[in-house]
Amino acid sequence: MRAVVYKKPFEVAVENVPDPRIQHPNDAIVRITSTCICGSDLHMYEGRTAAEPGIVFGHENLGIIQEVGPGVKERKVGDRVVMPFNVACGFCKNCLGGFTGFCTTVNPGFAGGAYGYVAMGPWVGGQAEYLQVPFADFNCLPLPPGTENEADFALLADIFCTGYHGAELAGVRPGESVAVFGAGPVGLMAAYSCIIRGAADVYVVDHVQARLDKAESIGAIPINYDASDPVEQIKERRGGSGADKGIDAVGYQATRPGSSAAGGEQDEAPNIVLNQLIEAVNPTGALGIPGLYVPSDPSGVDEGAKRGALSINFGKLFEKGLRLGTGQCNVKQYNAYLRDLIIAGRAKPSFVVSNEVSLDDAPDAYQKFDRRVEGYTKVVLHP
Amino acid sequence: MRAVVYKKPFEVAVENVPDPRIQHPNDAIVRITSTCICGSDLHMYEGRTAAEPGIVFGHENLGIIQEVGPGVKERKVGDRVVMPFNVACGFCKNCLGGFTGFCTTVNPGFAGGAYGYVAMGPWVGGQAEYLQVPFADFNCLPLPPGTENEADFALLADIFCTGYHGAELAGVRPGESVAVFGAGPVGLMAAYSCIIRGAADVYVVDHVQARLDKAESIGAIPINYDASDPVEQIKERRGGSGADKGIDAVGYQATRPGSSAAGGEQDEAPNIVLNQLIEAVNPTGALGIPGLYVPSDPSGVDEGAKRGALSINFGKLFEKGLRLGTGQCNVKQYNAYLRDLIIAGRAKPSFVVSNEVSLDDAPDAYQKFDRRVEGYTKVVLHP
Amino acid sequence: MRAVVYKKPFEVAVENVPDPRIQHPNDAIVRITSTCICGSDLHMYEGRTAAEPGIVFGHENLGIIQEVGPGVKERKVGDRVVMPFNVACGFCKNCLGGFTGFCTTVNPGFAGGAYGYVAMGPWVGGQAEYLQVPFADFNCLPLPPGTENEADFALLADIFCTGYHGAELAGVRPGESVAVFGAGPVGLMAAYSCIIRGAADVYVVDHVQARLDKAESIGAIPINYDASDPVEQIKERRGGSGADKGIDAVGYQATRPGSSAAGGEQDEAPNIVLNQLIEAVNPTGALGIPGLYVPSDPSGVDEGAKRGALSINFGKLFEKGLRLGTGQCNVKQYNAYLRDLIIAGRAKPSFVVSNEVSLDDAPDAYQKFDRRVEGYTKVVLHP
Amino acid sequence: MRAVVYKKPFEVAVENVPDPRIQHPNDAIVRITSTCICGSDLHMYEGRTAAEPGIVFGHENLGIIQEVGPGVKERKVGDRVVMPFNVACGFCKNCLGGFTGFCTTVNPGFAGGAYGYVAMGPWVGGQAEYLQVPFADFNCLPLPPGTENEADFALLADIFCTGYHGAELAGVRPGESVAVFGAGPVGLMAAYSCIIRGAADVYVVDHVQARLDKAESIGAIPINYDASDPVEQIKERRGGSGADKGIDAVGYQATRPGSSAAGGEQDEAPNIVLNQLIEAVNPTGALGIPGLYVPSDPSGVDEGAKRGALSINFGKLFEKGLRLGTGQCNVKQYNAYLRDLIIAGRAKPSFVVSNEVSLDDAPDAYQKFDRRVEGYTKVVLHP
Repeated sequence: MRAVVYKKPFEVAVENVPDPRIQHPNDAIVRITSTCICGSDLHMYEGRTAAEPGIVFGHENLGIIQEVGPGVKERKVGDRVVMPFNVACGFCKNCLGGFTGFCTTVNPGFAGGAYGYVAMGPWVGGQAEYLQVPFADFNCLPLPPGTENEADFALLADIFCTGYHGAELAGVRPGESVAVFGAGPVGLMAAYSCIIRGAADVYVVDHVQARLDKAESIGAIPINYDASDPVEQIKERRGGSGADKGIDAVGYQATRPGSSAAGGEQDEAPNIVLNQLIEAVNPTGALGIPGLYVPSDPSGVDEGAKRGALSINFGKLFEKGLRLGTGQCNVKQYNAYLRDLIIAGRAKPSFVVSNEVSLDDAPDAYQKFDRRVEGYTKVVLHP
Repeated sequence: MRAVVYKKPFEVAVENVPDPRIQHPNDAIVRITSTCICGSDLHMYEGRTAAEPGIVFGHENLGIIQEVGPGVKERKVGDRVVMPFNVACGFCKNCLGGFTGFCTTVNPGFAGGAYGYVAMGPWVGGQAEYLQVPFADFNCLPLPPGTENEADFALLADIFCTGYHGAELAGVRPGESVAVFGAGPVGLMAAYSCIIRGAADVYVVDHVQARLDKAESIGAIPINYDASDPVEQIKERRGGSGADKGIDAVGYQATRPGSSAAGGEQDEAPNIVLNQLIEAVNPTGALGIPGLYVPSDPSGVDEGAKRGALSINFGKLFEKGLRLGTGQCNVKQYNAYLRDLIIAGRAKPSFVVSNEVSLDDAPDAYQKFDRRVEGYTKVVLHP
Repeated sequence: MRAVVYKKPFEVAVENVPDPRIQHPNDAIVRITSTCICGSDLHMYEGRTAAEPGIVFGHENLGIIQEVGPGVKERKVGDRVVMPFNVACGFCKNCLGGFTGFCTTVNPGFAGGAYGYVAMGPWVGGQAEYLQVPFADFNCLPLPPGTENEADFALLADIFCTGYHGAELAGVRPGESVAVFGAGPVGLMAAYSCIIRGAADVYVVDHVQARLDKAESIGAIPINYDASDPVEQIKERRGGSGADKGIDAVGYQATRPGSSAAGGEQDEAPNIVLNQLIEAVNPTGALGIPGLYVPSDPSGVDEGAKRGALSINFGKLFEKGLRLGTGQCNVKQYNAYLRDLIIAGRAKPSFVVSNEVSLDDAPDAYQKFDRRVEGYTKVVLHP
Repeated sequence: MRAVVYKKPFEVAVENVPDPRIQHPNDAIVRITSTCICGSDLHMYEGRTAAEPGIVFGHENLGIIQEVGPGVKERKVGDRVVMPFNVACGFCKNCLGGFTGFCTTVNPGFAGGAYGYVAMGPWVGGQAEYLQVPFADFNCLPLPPGTENEADFALLADIFCTGYHGAELAGVRPGESVAVFGAGPVGLMAAYSCIIRGAADVYVVDHVQARLDKAESIGAIPINYDASDPVEQIKERRGGSGADKGIDAVGYQATRPGSSAAGGEQDEAPNIVLNQLIEAVNPTGALGIPGLYVPSDPSGVDEGAKRGALSINFGKLFEKGLRLGTGQCNVKQYNAYLRDLIIAGRAKPSFVVSNEVSLDDAPDAYQKFDRRVEGYTKVVLHP
């Protein structure tokens, strides 16, 4: 089959690779119809991970079940399904607790697995014609037949759920105010999720005008951090007070004000968003941190950053009695509920999708997405 | 001052009564600018309670602080404030737990107090020019100055919060389906609250077309129970399954299908909504029951109903593993958050208000509201 | 193999039945070493259900894995394991929500399955030499090798978890007071669980002195309802107030004071415990109801009881703002944690076990247990 | 009256100061019978804060109400009461949310107030004969009359609740394993609280043998960090895995292994416990952090520490998906429940009290406590 294969830093190719096959009774093979490029794919694409050439990318996958193993009970050939980016078993201690992003079965020696991602287990990516899905009854979320809402549903694999996870980690409740840092796809999904959950005032901080415009279009309040200190801007709008909750949808590749949109190592300040959130949120508040932080970053800006150690204003955080939650989204916790919001017409997350192209156009799409070419904010590939 | 005084069943008058005054250091006197007639006022108006002639009605009160006692710390003369219908102290065990509807301080020998309501303590009602508010720092919710959103804010005293309480008792979460029984003011507020909280599908069951139309106007799905069994209608629309959650916004004066909208004792079936909800909600679901049930109803349809004993399909409820929550709304739990939604423009609950009239028109308004004269669904009085 | 087979009301026999075998890739075959007789087995034994002759009893099963299907991933031949009485798949909507007692996969057309129980699906009981366990990775809880704590671990299949479920449904928290109705095995486990969770005062209501003595031995306060009104006894001990929380560990076969311990239909009052709990618990409190209520009881005391409709003091329940939770225990929610308490030596639930006998003695044990022969409170069979 | 007055670093004196008096209608004056010296008093005593000479110390206060203002409703002269160390109003947004440690009313411009503590508002300390208590209905927790359990109840003012807060912030549940760092009074109370809440395995890390012995005496597992890496010790005992939850009862004055018990600046490593906890706790776990961290520490070991910025292994924390909660204990959330555990005989926290002396002996007691003179672990003063 055809698949997006990583060749070397800043280069992917669409090549022939072996077809996946049923290897375990609980496997299914899914024919992919939509698969997205994720911001986290760019970490590998840019060569900032240990990913080796030859890996097939793709962890945001939707398609039609082509074949099922003899152990699969409820999912059937022909079902339209979307798969969480995190591969999970459903029966280990973490899965039982709802922490399906930290499954201890699917990636021996580590808590958490994913398709097509370095160090996340043996699971081949889905930017391809077909995908092997283990524990298919658990991992395949059924969708209505047909092709309606295809792009919306594809976002259930990762970013809609990941944005929602930010709101959940922060415990966002109706009537609250929230400061969301980052208006990339995850940040926009986080802001959108806050609004779905009934937040009163949602501030979205970024410095790319097109992203801020998207945030405003869904009812959030845009804050451009290149204009002035975003914390001060939020407090000024709130009569001197901060927000009830905060969400970090940026992660460790945060940059200082004035940096170019595409980022540059010299401008990175991996702790800046965390420390701004500590200032922006009121005492007794909470932070949801879906933005990625890593324990090892060979390209980190200093010795601490290289091993994931950041200088955090912990004294201030403690004085304010803040709580925080981190980590990969447990997609399985939310995807069925968010699917039902899409079906009911109450959520339409595909407003973040900027481009839908064929699988063969993946190399070009990666290049443009990586360079933040105007408007390339979220790409869906159709094999 | 002028006030709405209960004279006898089906008769109120606007009369002169003594002005309230500061009786305790923590009291405030509020000049009322908006005060609503509540469906629960009609229980007294119709003579179905032990309320004695002379009682001043009114527990949904908003106004301007006129005077404060020497113990009042944060509220100031001139503040626009709205008071929860439940009077509460803020420091008894129940108040500390957030159960301000069950304060044990303000109504000795009973858990719960209210303004202008039989058996709810010595607190004079607010359908009047002035109101004595005890524990003013705790009971006065500050509002933005001016008169903007006056009707919306007035609904924070009771029904917006009470409807929201139904959603909270049922634990309604984003993406869930909910069956709301009753499309009176509380039912509409419950449905509205479910939508604010991100519910996917909200079914509203009633048999008054105007109410069902209002439900539909906010995005709920109207179910007319005079047309056919409402449970079957809901299941049919859901492919055979029930709803995740249910809300009873009807209470003990529930009527059988085909009863006239105004009700009549012969048609009452006080257990009908509870048993329908047990059918309408899926196994593992939950019921929120803000609709009023009473331990003594001299006009009850049978011996059990007279003492508040209802025949409940408890075997079925258990088999389905349902949970349920009941009781008066703890307004203080929600009112600040819902106020902030109104201020942010994300909630506009005054869509249920049908009439705004002067205090002097109260006798006429009571009569029309009690007879459910077309369109008289929620009346705000302005002293 | 040898198994306990239901012959007719009040008669079981140990007979040869076909050996179970792997029927699905995710099945395991477990060689049973301990299997308990449950109070709910007696409903079938007494002929008060639709159970037909030939059914093999036994839903509290512990043993050693003998064989696994090719889909089983983590459980191995030789593992000592205990199975929740509820058979569950791990991936349906209810299982995903933690409601494994309401699995929709394992018993088509119904939410919930169990081993060896009428209407709970095709799963043969475990009062036998071997047991077929579906979805073995999900349903087999691993235990330390050996035979230590065998009786304690066997209680993880049902009653320790079911008692704990009562405390969970009531939301029992440290420092609270709890009224537990029923001191049978489940009631004792409920009281024990409240103490484990840090409750301050636990009242246990029964009228069998031996059971009350057991309750006292674990630090609970025994209340004999034959002596006088148990609600009054509790309130007297609490200075006039009720308890924070209540647990119904009796269910629909509740009897009036003065009835013989063995019960008799003429004495049954299926709503008595529920209505006593409504009195015994303070406003704002909550009830956990693990005690069984059924939607159909042909031997019910009146027309309502026959269809599971009970006269509940709902007006009083509402006035007090009570919450309640019901239903079969979701064993999988608790069993690993309670197992770890046993391993750590902090829980020793086997204090309720009165008799350990061989499988061949089952007919005698059933007879004595059913007649509440002195001391026959909980029997473990060893095949 | 006589009171403990701070003179200069390492010196306090018992001197005459003005008697407190009713200054607001909601005030009470309490005659102190027991008042403890807290580890946090030593921060001021050692001159590591901005506390100025003349301040009266004491925030762990218990006594008899001597006088009440005209606004006080429920508390009466003669009541035995214990006061949370945090002064709170009961009606500000934070108090309403249960965050009474972050009251915005009692210490203008800051969220949180306390008796006798630098920068925590105008409230004079209670290491004295009398204490002015504002909002007396809210702040005075009534106790049984008499003198029974005096030392146990005195610990409700702070450390029993603060230890419990650690368990609450970490969400410790029955059957879980917990790593508690620090076996000072708060650490011991945290471990004790975990056990009360039903934890299965509680590891307590310290290097003072007497403290570890106390931990062992309540059923915890002592881990001496001077012996070897405490994380490795815990993992070794758990078969290679970490704990479910962690509690930091040490704070910013943490020291490296091998430091003397009394600490010394050269040995401080303010981030060491946080980073050890990140290692010690399993993925999906949570940290409760009642141990104090400050935004300004002029004696900090480096530039970061001086402004409360610590190097945290945030990449690892994120990879494990950990959550954490911080901040001063909201004593009012727990004190009534923990009081009831003491009354019921289920908690006896005074096992940490090492010395009970008269108020006049305070200078000597401070000196010995500060030097960690053998056995001086927790001192109660009796005026």
